[in-house]
Amino acid sequence: MSVTAAKGFEASGVEAGLKSSGGLDLALVVNRGPLMNAAAVFTSNRALANPIIWSKQVIADGTVSAIVLNSGGANCFTGAQGFQVTHATAEAVGSALDVSSGDVLVCSTGLIGDQLPLDKLLPAVAVAAAALGDHGDEASRAIMTTDSKPKRSIRLGNGYTVGGMAKGAGMLAPGLATMLVVITTDVVLSSAELDIALRSATRVSFDRLDSDGCMSTNDQVSLLASGASEVEPPLDAFTAVLTEVCLDLAEQLQGDAEGASHDIRIEVTGAATEDDAVEVGRSIARNNLFKAAIFGNDPNWGRVLAAIGTTDAAFDPYDVDVSMNGVRVCHEGAPDRPRTDVDLTNRRVDLLVDLKSGTATATILTNDLTHDYVHENSAYSS
Amino acid sequence: MSVTAAKGFEASGVEAGLKSSGGLDLALVVNRGPLMNAAAVFTSNRALANPIIWSKQVIADGTVSAIVLNSGGANCFTGAQGFQVTHATAEAVGSALDVSSGDVLVCSTGLIGDQLPLDKLLPAVAVAAAALGDHGDEASRAIMTTDSKPKRSIRLGNGYTVGGMAKGAGMLAPGLATMLVVITTDVVLSSAELDIALRSATRVSFDRLDSDGCMSTNDQVSLLASGASEVEPPLDAFTAVLTEVCLDLAEQLQGDAEGASHDIRIEVTGAATEDDAVEVGRSIARNNLFKAAIFGNDPNWGRVLAAIGTTDAAFDPYDVDVSMNGVRVCHEGAPDRPRTDVDLTNRRVDLLVDLKSGTATATILTNDLTHDYVHENSAYSS
Repeated sequence: MSVTAAKGFEASGVEAGLKSSGGLDLALVVNRGPLMNAAAVFTSNRALANPIIWSKQVIADGTVSAIVLNSGGANCFTGAQGFQVTHATAEAVGSALDVSSGDVLVCSTGLIGDQLPLDKLLPAVAVAAAALGDHGDEASRAIMTTDSKPKRSIRLGNGYTVGGMAKGAGMLAPGLATMLVVITTDVVLSSAELDIALRSATRVSFDRLDSDGCMSTNDQVSLLASGASEVEPPLDAFTAVLTEVCLDLAEQLQGDAEGASHDIRIEVTGAATEDDAVEVGRSIARNNLFKAAIFGNDPNWGRVLAAIGTTDAAFDPYDVDVSMNGVRVCHEGAPDRPRTDVDLTNRRVDLLVDLKSGTATATILTNDLTHDYVHENSAYSS
Repeated sequence: MSVTAAKGFEASGVEAGLKSSGGLDLALVVNRGPLMNAAAVFTSNRALANPIIWSKQVIADGTVSAIVLNSGGANCFTGAQGFQVTHATAEAVGSALDVSSGDVLVCSTGLIGDQLPLDKLLPAVAVAAAALGDHGDEASRAIMTTDSKPKRSIRLGNGYTVGGMAKGAGMLAPGLATMLVVITTDVVLSSAELDIALRSATRVSFDRLDSDGCMSTNDQVSLLASGASEVEPPLDAFTAVLTEVCLDLAEQLQGDAEGASHDIRIEVTGAATEDDAVEVGRSIARNNLFKAAIFGNDPNWGRVLAAIGTTDAAFDPYDVDVSMNGVRVCHEGAPDRPRTDVDLTNRRVDLLVDLKSGTATATILTNDLTHDYVHENSAYSS
């Protein structure tokens, strides 16, 4: 289901031969209407992959007929030839579906710096177009890279449906994480409304997932609306349902992060502002020493305080409380309950940092730093 | 030799019983004058250890008689009791040497959040005071934590000497790195002049060492001058000699970084400003995916570009050249010579990034991200 749960959408996933490991590697998602409204958000990295450069042009008018996604290559830093590959792929989709290539979003994921083989891509687009149907599951598998399993989510609104798929396991850092996400819905909302809803939902979901602090060149989250339900929900109600889908997918990305053995939920409370809470949470999520300690089931709260001391957030480092899995190990910047009271053997770890400087809060999702993370990322391009 | 190479200094290193592994863990360095001039720079982390809070008061008047350093515990986030321990240690040194405790710098290194045992510290201070002599080597060993070897450096100026010792293997990040450094010299320079020279030297040495992006709570670099050479060198000549000592020690710290298998020298050229060059270099030094790739001897230049794309530095990501060990693998943001031409099997790796946006340059020293780094830092407090 995933992207085909909402009315008006068809999808397929086929094998183009792009991945050295074999398997499905090209996904196509088509909006059959009646509306072709869409919104998308992109990586904030200045190093942009060719499909990002292309898709930013496509989304400008808020009209999207289809989205084609490939794994097996990022098509980033591949020069003018790489942009031609993206363009030709969109043309092939447009031709196969009888729509304008200017309404076709393109997403790529995989190694940076290698050319994608157009002689494999173009025939696969034709096969994918012929295979279109209720194949959201196949599509969600075709976008996997180092993912161990597909990520899908469906939520029902009042008379309408929101469904999505995501891929991402490494380079997970905010703005966005390293991931591709396609969400479809059958609501009747304008592209401008979809844009507001999507930015609101990603701000508190994908943008708060920071697995390894490394920001990708290829991130894209697309939201396509067909209007096929004929339901026009209040924007805030739709945004709430959309946010649930985004949070569900973000947690699935966290749960499948490369090599991770712990899912760490960093909750920052008592912040003067939400920005402060996010900055403090991220400084912890990006601290290798803290992350390695969690891998070793070591409640090393000193590394939490050393991390947050590097931020500009408003708080007194000597009046901070830190709890791990409900045990307050640091009170007012001094040792509280003994480290040995904390059990970190479960995959899920809850870290609570109370800044005692206000009422704002934020939650950041991250993972530990493990032998397997190093192993997977030291051998990725070979 | 190290800190006892310059005339007018004595040192010792003794075993106080602070380190669970045993061995020397308390160092004392004494300035016998005739001058007692000094300067010091400290971590820019807002989370400050008690010895840092103490030493900032001591250095305020530019007069330092002695410096006492312990491994086996950072005395950070140990509350009022922890500050009393630092104060009492300085008092003990003052009493043993018949100097004011207000002229005694204190440095601590080790685990954050544990109290130091005063009943072991105070007798050890007395032993160290009695053992003072030409024992710079013992002092440099007493400050080691996870260091595999002591770090020492000596340079001769025109009629004077600059000698130093350093410790540091993890939490190496600028502003400063996680390290303790003591440098002694017998020049005749005022404390204000020493301060200018020290800030100039550390800015291009220790501040450009970024092993793991984690900033410590205990960093301190102290420079003590005895005037015993009776030589008053030009400040720029002295600064040049001092910078050589700092660079030598910084490279020794890099070469002994926890678990590292590669020493990576990141040279950024063609930057619009030196700040831009430093920002770009640091973004690479802190990118876990790049660092894991180097561990795997994988010349993954795409990760270099993905890292620098997150900075605000002035350059065009599509007009950047990247070379590894002299092989230009990326030219104008597209693949150049094949990855297979790059041999990364040696410990030393030279990465050159040409931003083509100006004439400023900077060099950042870092290390790879390895299994051993994760292992050492997942088991540190146990």
